[in-house]
Amino acid sequence: MLREQQFWVLGGDMRQAKLAQLLAKDGHRVHTFALEEAVIPERGLTVDENLRLVERGDCIILPLPVCGEEGMLNTSLSSLEVTVESVLDALSGNQIICGGRVDEETAAAARVRELTIYDYFAREELAVDNAVPTAEGCIQIAMEHLPITIHEARVLVVGYGRVGKMTAQRMGALGAKVSVAARRYEQLAWAQAMGFGTERVDQLAGWLCSYDLVVNTVPSMVLGRVELSDLRSDCLIIDLASKPGGVDMEAAAQLGRTVIWALSLPGKVAPITAGAAIKSTIYNILHETDS
Amino acid sequence: MLREQQFWVLGGDMRQAKLAQLLAKDGHRVHTFALEEAVIPERGLTVDENLRLVERGDCIILPLPVCGEEGMLNTSLSSLEVTVESVLDALSGNQIICGGRVDEETAAAARVRELTIYDYFAREELAVDNAVPTAEGCIQIAMEHLPITIHEARVLVVGYGRVGKMTAQRMGALGAKVSVAARRYEQLAWAQAMGFGTERVDQLAGWLCSYDLVVNTVPSMVLGRVELSDLRSDCLIIDLASKPGGVDMEAAAQLGRTVIWALSLPGKVAPITAGAAIKSTIYNILHETDS
Amino acid sequence: MLREQQFWVLGGDMRQAKLAQLLAKDGHRVHTFALEEAVIPERGLTVDENLRLVERGDCIILPLPVCGEEGMLNTSLSSLEVTVESVLDALSGNQIICGGRVDEETAAAARVRELTIYDYFAREELAVDNAVPTAEGCIQIAMEHLPITIHEARVLVVGYGRVGKMTAQRMGALGAKVSVAARRYEQLAWAQAMGFGTERVDQLAGWLCSYDLVVNTVPSMVLGRVELSDLRSDCLIIDLASKPGGVDMEAAAQLGRTVIWALSLPGKVAPITAGAAIKSTIYNILHETDS
Amino acid sequence: MLREQQFWVLGGDMRQAKLAQLLAKDGHRVHTFALEEAVIPERGLTVDENLRLVERGDCIILPLPVCGEEGMLNTSLSSLEVTVESVLDALSGNQIICGGRVDEETAAAARVRELTIYDYFAREELAVDNAVPTAEGCIQIAMEHLPITIHEARVLVVGYGRVGKMTAQRMGALGAKVSVAARRYEQLAWAQAMGFGTERVDQLAGWLCSYDLVVNTVPSMVLGRVELSDLRSDCLIIDLASKPGGVDMEAAAQLGRTVIWALSLPGKVAPITAGAAIKSTIYNILHETDS
Repeated sequence: MLREQQFWVLGGDMRQAKLAQLLAKDGHRVHTFALEEAVIPERGLTVDENLRLVERGDCIILPLPVCGEEGMLNTSLSSLEVTVESVLDALSGNQIICGGRVDEETAAAARVRELTIYDYFAREELAVDNAVPTAEGCIQIAMEHLPITIHEARVLVVGYGRVGKMTAQRMGALGAKVSVAARRYEQLAWAQAMGFGTERVDQLAGWLCSYDLVVNTVPSMVLGRVELSDLRSDCLIIDLASKPGGVDMEAAAQLGRTVIWALSLPGKVAPITAGAAIKSTIYNILHETDS
Repeated sequence: MLREQQFWVLGGDMRQAKLAQLLAKDGHRVHTFALEEAVIPERGLTVDENLRLVERGDCIILPLPVCGEEGMLNTSLSSLEVTVESVLDALSGNQIICGGRVDEETAAAARVRELTIYDYFAREELAVDNAVPTAEGCIQIAMEHLPITIHEARVLVVGYGRVGKMTAQRMGALGAKVSVAARRYEQLAWAQAMGFGTERVDQLAGWLCSYDLVVNTVPSMVLGRVELSDLRSDCLIIDLASKPGGVDMEAAAQLGRTVIWALSLPGKVAPITAGAAIKSTIYNILHETDS
Repeated sequence: MLREQQFWVLGGDMRQAKLAQLLAKDGHRVHTFALEEAVIPERGLTVDENLRLVERGDCIILPLPVCGEEGMLNTSLSSLEVTVESVLDALSGNQIICGGRVDEETAAAARVRELTIYDYFAREELAVDNAVPTAEGCIQIAMEHLPITIHEARVLVVGYGRVGKMTAQRMGALGAKVSVAARRYEQLAWAQAMGFGTERVDQLAGWLCSYDLVVNTVPSMVLGRVELSDLRSDCLIIDLASKPGGVDMEAAAQLGRTVIWALSLPGKVAPITAGAAIKSTIYNILHETDS
Repeated sequence: MLREQQFWVLGGDMRQAKLAQLLAKDGHRVHTFALEEAVIPERGLTVDENLRLVERGDCIILPLPVCGEEGMLNTSLSSLEVTVESVLDALSGNQIICGGRVDEETAAAARVRELTIYDYFAREELAVDNAVPTAEGCIQIAMEHLPITIHEARVLVVGYGRVGKMTAQRMGALGAKVSVAARRYEQLAWAQAMGFGTERVDQLAGWLCSYDLVVNTVPSMVLGRVELSDLRSDCLIIDLASKPGGVDMEAAAQLGRTVIWALSLPGKVAPITAGAAIKSTIYNILHETDS
């Protein structure tokens, strides 16, 4: 296990608030700043009003994303307004500094100050961890919007990466008849090995009319006008792909197809789990930088 | 397959509306009455304004429950108000009459007219079918209210009948760590054979503090003040048991425990699936009365 | 937990030998008799050469079945030959006496001596426990004999009792396409709710040609000449039903169908698990007789 | 679908024999050579005694591995002895030539003749397909050798590649308590997302004593003397890793640990499935070379 450290958690949303609590529960000394609307002080957990003591911290955790608007620290659970630069000014090069989805300006501002920001959101293990609440969020949305059960629903999952794999697996576990659309033979072989039907992602049109639910995970236009026309009018489409998404929204609107574009599900549907995943990734970063 | 029949679907909610559509899709001739807000006429499917032609029907389907208030037919999707007795007056003894959750007054009124009403809700296969949307509805509620994922959540399912079995199985399929509380050794052996932990339902107190979610399916007081006190304050309780439920609501309120009492989930979360289940049960009744 | 007891385990096979070890591991004082080929003395576990001290035992465990041939105790792991009657003569009415599959002669001999033998094999929880190794044994046999994987194999499970349910569930978990043949609507509804296809057990002929494997669990003739003719010649049949079995063996031989009649799998494929299941059932008996 | 082709299947084992039958079933014209002990001629399927007509073939399929001993074609189901070079001499550059695990001598001999051999065994989709029978074979071996059920067995799967993933998933599906040992954080995150416990593969010693079964899939020494000493004496070890394997066999022998080194399972436990997988991969090669 990690030896006791002093952590500073600066800004962010419920995930950072939960992260701070979980770090304190593990026995660390945790300061929070710009999270005062969500954090209640307890043993080992402090709500700080400024960054005067931040230099004592071993590990500094910036939010996800680090930046809100125009160079300001992302502080959605605080009335404080503070620039990222002023935060960086308070930090020193012998601290481990972590941040999520570090933008170019922030990275540049850090470099100027000879600081390194480890991007926890860029790490593969966090992406895998986040695929779990994303898949569950997708199931929740499907349950809320479909007038049928997931059990025996015919579900097409487009894309077989992290989110596609977990969504297909969990839909299947609930009794859905799942097919996977992918491009590479290897992915199709995996889908078959896990018991799913398979479709070629570049040959969807003509094969779509039997589905009750289509879940897209590919961030490029896979459901264009032709594919959307081929879907039944009561088929639900859930797009989990990050921008630009994978659905022709204009065509969908014209055709009257129901599309739900669901982004950033982990923080919304399971902030504690999402915070725990960040904690685990931060620990990995600390282990690696320790050696 | 069943030969073509003339069905009359009288009153009810979305399940009956969907049932009518599904019967028509199977090639039957279907009349609906007192469902005009949800049924659109199509091939084989008629919206009738009165019961003048009901005597031609082979099979008459009354709603679930048959009775709304004080002897009136349950007509939640209609502006029509009609007594159950007047409906029965229009029917004859050589028709197959089915109804859901037939109350004593209705049964008596039928007997007087020498009519038999087959209660589809009393049939075991419908109860099994309905356990699927009930379990899914429970999962949906849990996802909506828990700040953690079902994956890795510690879930206790109290009772191991139809709903308990399916809820435990589906929670486990989503990665929850599931325990089952039951009374009989045989049920505990089944729960273990399906991979769940086990608790004695009469010895819950003292073993409850580790759970994130407790789902009750037993319609008698199993979660009283002592058991509720033993739960963590952030543990969610979902009570799926029919009246009187299984949770001491007053004690729960005093202790600040979150309890969601969720009744009649199938019609709410999956009306089409619930309508299809009724259809399947009606067919079984017709097969049996045919021979 | 059970307070410490003195157990005597008399005769039997590997299950009884393992049972004796497990009881000793739980902290009980255990004597064994007529198991000398399989039991090695250790702390708390004795190999006795006679029954002189058996009167001190709190609980006496006879084998499964109690009787070997012609009134002799079932002693397959011993060179000793001893009659059941002589064993009963050494026991007294204030001991808890348990035995498996107690035959009528043994029961009568006990009654004469005013002894009660609790039949652990007749208890539902042991039957459930034993269905697990039975289902696994069935999978093992199928894997050994089929030139295809269970994954994607088309499997028909006939009967949906304990063994049928567990076999269907585990075959499905390995990726087989499973259908269940049963008689009652309720059982078919359960099978569907668990994600399996369904067949009517009394209308199998005409629907059998697509299966790679048929597993029977019904102890009456369900696979007669007509059904067997309908199977593909390379279809494997595993009959798990106790005597008289469910397959017309003569017809199968004439038609060249491969039938494996697999009885008493738990003791063969998983004697330790089977012994642990007996232990658990004995504990239940002791709890019940204690109150 | 693929247009009709003329295939020649030359040498090999049951997988090639089944492959030839499956190709013929798909409507292709199939010649076989050096498979006469396993192939019976049928519609579209010929047993050829020489290679005189092989130049008419569109696609030539060499066995897996191509070479038996010292330059001879692998012909385990034939009395014919023929060199690989003589086979290559009969082929021409406008044919699609496929072979499995093509060795350097064969590749060189092909290059000299301006022939290209597509190695179907080197393709990722075949490796994925083969992981299914490998995982099932592992389960079969475990069932045959363990005196307990897979259900509730504590299983450690070392390595989380193709075979590790499928073995862990299927063991878990049968009710085993599965942990996965891997090296990368990302793999451990995947294992956790699928519901398994996790171990660090480089820190196994000290954590091994609770396992009933260890399945290794890593082809480097992960179970050395220290790790083997830490295992219980009745723990079963199945090594699925290709040469040099992952177990110190000498230490295992000295310590009395039971190790089963199981290689090439697909062809042994499920030749038809393995043949079908090769067919599917050959089709993919033909699609790719066609465009």
